[in-house]
Amino acid sequence: MSNTSIDASRLLGRLAELGAIGCDADGRLVRLAASDADKLGRDRLVAWIEAAGLELAIDRIGNIFGIWAPDSTQDRAPLLLGSHIDTVIDAGIYDGCYGVLSALEVIETLKASGFAPSRPIAVAAFTNEEGVRYAPDMMGSLVYAGGLDVETALATRGTDGSLLGDELKRIGYAGEKEPGFLKPHAYIELHIEQGPVLEREGLSLGAVENLQGISWQRVTIEGDANHAGTTPMTMRRDAGHASARVITFLRERAMASNTQTVATVGCLEFQPNAINVIPSKAIFTVDLRDPDEDRLKEEEAALARFLESLSAEEQVTISVERLARFEPVKFDEGIVATIEAAARARALPCRRMTSGAGRDAQMIARIAPSAMIFVPSKGGISHNPREFTSHDDLVAGADVLLDVVSTLTQEE
Amino acid sequence: MSNTSIDASRLLGRLAELGAIGCDADGRLVRLAASDADKLGRDRLVAWIEAAGLELAIDRIGNIFGIWAPDSTQDRAPLLLGSHIDTVIDAGIYDGCYGVLSALEVIETLKASGFAPSRPIAVAAFTNEEGVRYAPDMMGSLVYAGGLDVETALATRGTDGSLLGDELKRIGYAGEKEPGFLKPHAYIELHIEQGPVLEREGLSLGAVENLQGISWQRVTIEGDANHAGTTPMTMRRDAGHASARVITFLRERAMASNTQTVATVGCLEFQPNAINVIPSKAIFTVDLRDPDEDRLKEEEAALARFLESLSAEEQVTISVERLARFEPVKFDEGIVATIEAAARARALPCRRMTSGAGRDAQMIARIAPSAMIFVPSKGGISHNPREFTSHDDLVAGADVLLDVVSTLTQEE
Repeated sequence: MSNTSIDASRLLGRLAELGAIGCDADGRLVRLAASDADKLGRDRLVAWIEAAGLELAIDRIGNIFGIWAPDSTQDRAPLLLGSHIDTVIDAGIYDGCYGVLSALEVIETLKASGFAPSRPIAVAAFTNEEGVRYAPDMMGSLVYAGGLDVETALATRGTDGSLLGDELKRIGYAGEKEPGFLKPHAYIELHIEQGPVLEREGLSLGAVENLQGISWQRVTIEGDANHAGTTPMTMRRDAGHASARVITFLRERAMASNTQTVATVGCLEFQPNAINVIPSKAIFTVDLRDPDEDRLKEEEAALARFLESLSAEEQVTISVERLARFEPVKFDEGIVATIEAAARARALPCRRMTSGAGRDAQMIARIAPSAMIFVPSKGGISHNPREFTSHDDLVAGADVLLDVVSTLTQEE
Repeated sequence: MSNTSIDASRLLGRLAELGAIGCDADGRLVRLAASDADKLGRDRLVAWIEAAGLELAIDRIGNIFGIWAPDSTQDRAPLLLGSHIDTVIDAGIYDGCYGVLSALEVIETLKASGFAPSRPIAVAAFTNEEGVRYAPDMMGSLVYAGGLDVETALATRGTDGSLLGDELKRIGYAGEKEPGFLKPHAYIELHIEQGPVLEREGLSLGAVENLQGISWQRVTIEGDANHAGTTPMTMRRDAGHASARVITFLRERAMASNTQTVATVGCLEFQPNAINVIPSKAIFTVDLRDPDEDRLKEEEAALARFLESLSAEEQVTISVERLARFEPVKFDEGIVATIEAAARARALPCRRMTSGAGRDAQMIARIAPSAMIFVPSKGGISHNPREFTSHDDLVAGADVLLDVVSTLTQEE
């Protein structure tokens, strides 16, 4: 299929058009799940799906499907492609939308080329991947994969007090289909990397072979709030200094490990937070990620051991609260190899890589062989209007998806 | 004089009485400078000064003086004793008040005993030592010592928008005397330690020989706000981690120095402060103190050198803003030795020490030989209702002040 290509101007035009829908009064792109702006984006996608002659389906959690099922394939499980079109606040235009619109583009291209797939091919836009308005994130795909009861999900109370179920009804996207109604044969998600690796290494594509497990913890260290001038160094129980030791420990350990482990302290608060008072309390978050579950467990254990010795050394009290925990996901080796082969055939430099962020693919991997394709993100920036991927990279990614899809639907 | 003693019950009774004046609706002791509550405290002090038969004087910045000047001493410079009676919000009852009321107690005791001093003895209560409502702190003594123009000080705008000059007039404490009108022969301030050293070492008294220089800086570190999951450790510019390195550097250097240097990071803020985002910015304060000016300068220089190398190593941008800087103060050797001798004569365990906090004595030291006497603070706690010094320690401190005053006013 390396001589067929997607319609670059159609794909790029749709990305720009969808990216212009849902700007708020400050000019920020904001399409929070099940909001009025999300409705406008959904309506646009549905119109494109229908114009392409695909069968439209919406399930009870609001996931949107566009299904191409030629008569001869009706009894077979579909190859599912997709991502999401909801956004964060002040978002870029690529995150999620690129995967959904490329999937639609690939289907339209194959359909127009006279290609006869061995099974249906469908595009999915999953509800509330970002989780900004309703927790947890990746909710639509999680419900679809059976990991969360649909009634529970619909009863989720948003940050604005709204119920997701009510809001889906209000915007006209509370569908009839039961989540999971379309059991995928396999799932492929094309996405911007949202990280710096491909750009730094000068590569066009990532064949994503796994997804990091995530461990989120909140650590609270308590010492004594004494006077910064009158308390000798040896008589201090400085919660702030103890928190700094945790940060440098995590960093040095991750740097020395020669693995894919990443460790981040993103939130930190001192109390009483006064210039001349030794901090009595430091509260901070620890984000640990690793694609290997055993190693992730070992990182958690190493932190626990360090906190125990720190508590004794610095005479501080330490408590830890678990905020979130996801096991790593291993994607399907066959699909990953197919992605690599497709990139090779188009002479696009490609590497295997790990997804550092959560994706809908990690949920769908529970019910079908799955994999992802990454394209570069300029400066690794995303969730920001400066999010950018070059047109060449966007088109190359969609072309590789096209080749992978045609390979996987002519095999049998 | 070791067989004379102050009237313990009068001193402790007055401390309790003054400590009960100025409780707010929540039961917190709050006598901010030149407030209605401060007026009530001042009125009580003035009544005691007048009842003791002392000459009352109030200067333009509101400093209150009670002067005992027997006829034969009128042409001589007075020995000045004092501290302040304004408080922080939710204060303890000892900070400042103990020094003022002990000074009054010592004068009354000497007067009643028939003692004939060689020079006048006066008690001073300096305006706005705490600096909570009007900046800078130690304002009354600073103006008195000529370090700040009285007009400028009176024009200070408070945190509540008020002008100090207006408020002093309103509460009836805008006096006529020019600050500095009474040129002290020497100055002695008795104060609670507000630190843990005396209690930890089981001592009754500190003969304070110097006062730390103070250097306050605000450091801002800027890196890149990248995704905690998708950004490999080696590709990070983590402002949060860089700030943690500064905190551990300062701590380790101060611990290793074997000097009186103290270093504290009391305030710290991360931006964007999100669990899954590498901090792009860390803003924190550095409080450095040392009784030796050369060493304090060297500590500042060492920090500057560290920040420079850190900036290069971590690829972060660092800027530093100076917030405050006071040189160390050396107190008068003769008075310090007199304090030690007085403690020895009463068999009270005593050590020489450094004041870690700013005091009125550091200002008056600009115009007269000065020193301080410390008594223990339970747990090192102050600026807090849990501030506590035992009755025995309070009485012992006042007795030593009595002995020092009588020694210094019978010398010539």
